[in-house]
Order: sequence, then C-alpha cells, then structure tokens
Amino acid sequence: MSSTRDIDSLIEMMARLPGLGPRSARRAVLHLIAKREIKLLPLSGMMQKVAETARECSVCGNIGTTEVCDICLAPKRANGILCVVESVSDLWAMERGGAFKGRYHVLGGTLSALDQVGPEQLRIPAMIGRIEQEGITEVILALAATIDGQTTAHYIADQIEGRVRLTSLAQGVPIGGELDYLDDGTISAALSARKDI
Amino acid sequence: MSSTRDIDSLIEMMARLPGLGPRSARRAVLHLIAKREIKLLPLSGMMQKVAETARECSVCGNIGTTEVCDICLAPKRANGILCVVESVSDLWAMERGGAFKGRYHVLGGTLSALDQVGPEQLRIPAMIGRIEQEGITEVILALAATIDGQTTAHYIADQIEGRVRLTSLAQGVPIGGELDYLDDGTISAALSARKDI
Repeated sequence: MSSTRDIDSLIEMMARLPGLGPRSARRAVLHLIAKREIKLLPLSGMMQKVAETARECSVCGNIGTTEVCDICLAPKRANGILCVVESVSDLWAMERGGAFKGRYHVLGGTLSALDQVGPEQLRIPAMIGRIEQEGITEVILALAATIDGQTTAHYIADQIEGRVRLTSLAQGVPIGGELDYLDDGTISAALSARKDI
Repeated sequence: MSSTRDIDSLIEMMARLPGLGPRSARRAVLHLIAKREIKLLPLSGMMQKVAETARECSVCGNIGTTEVCDICLAPKRANGILCVVESVSDLWAMERGGAFKGRYHVLGGTLSALDQVGPEQLRIPAMIGRIEQEGITEVILALAATIDGQTTAHYIADQIEGRVRLTSLAQGVPIGGELDYLDDGTISAALSARKDI
C-alpha cells in the first residue's frame, strides 16, 4: 500500500468540489493536516453533522436543519410577498442583500426542454398552492436573465396572471459597476429604464 | 437555535481554507449537501481517516500514513543524491516533475530572523546527519529564489561545503513561458546562463 493513498484520495475528493482544482486541493489538504486538531478534525466532524441533519424546508425548499426554516417560521415575514428564486444559493444571496422582508420559494432549477425539466420537477405546483394558503398578494420573480430563467418566468406568469401582483427584479448597472465592463444588453436595459434624478 | 447554524459553521470553516473564500465555500457546501451520500459523507469519512493516520516521515519529513514514506523505503532511490526542499508541497511538485530519482529532505520552512526560525527549527541538523548515514554525494538545494530561501541555501552551503557536491536548480525561462510576462530578474538570470544551441 502506498504511504500517501488516503491523502491522495482526500485531495482528489477536494479537487472535485466546485471552485477548487488539484492545486488548491493540495494546498488545502496540507494546510488541514498541518492543523489537524484545530482544523481537520472539526471540519470532518461538522461535515458529518451536516450530512446527518441538513434537509430542505418543507415549505420553501431552503436548506436548513429543521423541518421548516427560520424564514418560513418568522411571523413578521408573512407580509404577503413571495420571492421566487431558482436555487438555495440565490435565496442566500437575497438574504445577504437584506432588503427583502417577505418569504421565499425555491424552484430548484429552471424549466428546460433540453434537460427534460418540467413544472412538476420544479416545485411550481407547490408555489401556486402557497399563493392561496398564505394569502400572497405579490410574487417577485427573482430568476436569472437567461433563456431558461426567462422561460420559467413566463410560464409562472401564465399560471398565476390576474390572481396576484407579479413583479421582477430591476435590470441595470450594478452598484460599483463600470460601464466599460458591462455587456451591451445590460447597458440597453439600464438606458431604457432610466430614471429622473 | 437558527435552522442554518451548523451549515453556516461548515461554510465558515471551508471559507478559511487557503484558496477558498466565502463565495466558493458556499458553493462547495451546497454542492456537498445536494450530493450527501456520494460526496459529503465520503469526504467527511476520509478527512477523519487522514486526521487519524497522517504523519511525517521520520526520515525526510514528507507527509504520509506510514512511519517511513515510500520514497525513503524505495532502494532504487538511494542513489546518493539528496534534494533539499522547503515544504511537502515542494516535494510533491518535484515528484510530479518526475525527473528526480533520488531522495528528499523537507526543511519545514526557511531561516528567518524576523520570525525567529533558526537551524534547529528546520531539520537542518537531521539533514547533515543523513549525509553521513546514507552516503550522500550530492545535495541539490531546491529552495525558493526569495531572500529567506537564499539565506537558508547559504547557511546550508556553509555547513556542508567540501563534504559533498552542492548544486541548485537552474534559473531561466519557464517552459511555455512568454518573455513578455517574465520579471526582469528571471530574464537577466536566463541571459547570463545562456547555452550554445
């Protein structure tokens, strides 16, 4: 048996994570081994714990360790506004923004004819059910400005049109963004949605 | 208790690894949770295993899971040439190159007056011992071309001068490197060490 077989396996596993490659995986693993007690063991233990307890919120699809997530449980957030996002990471990004005070619904992807993803795979029926149950008055479609994202937005709009106010995130220049680095589509969108100062 | 406390802790731990930040840690953790059985649990288990078994080779300082590493155990590699490197990652980089057929000695750092690192902290006495014991005829100093690296190389050279052949890695243009992107020092070094074609 090679003296580095397990370490090589660990590096390979780390290297397959999104955002890492072989080089950063090697660095991370050597770092972890050098700080075994304060880094490697706690990390391994926390991974084990999360593997045992992480679950989808049964209402919105957020990831947490409870049957229903904190956001869905907070009475203050039942303000009648539902923000529909594609993924949990989008939900977390909205929460970091801190501006949205309502509840979320995670679709778990976008409609895609190519990947054979239909409405049933996307928790769209569950979302429509929530509109009645929770007395939703506005649905914000915070979906990506991609073809699949916009197809999904149109599909949802067709399903719930007339029953609630339907909005989408504004398109324009990002805060701190330089015009020079923006794509033409964004500049056009920002121009046509220009505001009086 | 927050429904995402453990997941947040896991993300924080991952974000402190070299090469990762909060954004890539979030992506990695969501990816791991989505593939709990085939990614998260095996990774956690392998970390646990490595935490229990990883150790320094008692001869050269390489990281492995055995008392003495494969390289130090291989009789073929006792060719009288010892390559002195700063860290285990440098040893691994040399091995990936595949050109070196001798044995290694990992110093575990470089001499540094600022950080109060002296020869005793660096396994330099162990290296000098190995020259006698293993009948070393050549020592290759594969140390970084930084001030600390070169200070360390000079110190080692002073200690073993006259007893063995002492060499260092060639400096010059990297394979596939474009002159335009090289620093001036490297170009000067490559020019003064030019070869007849």
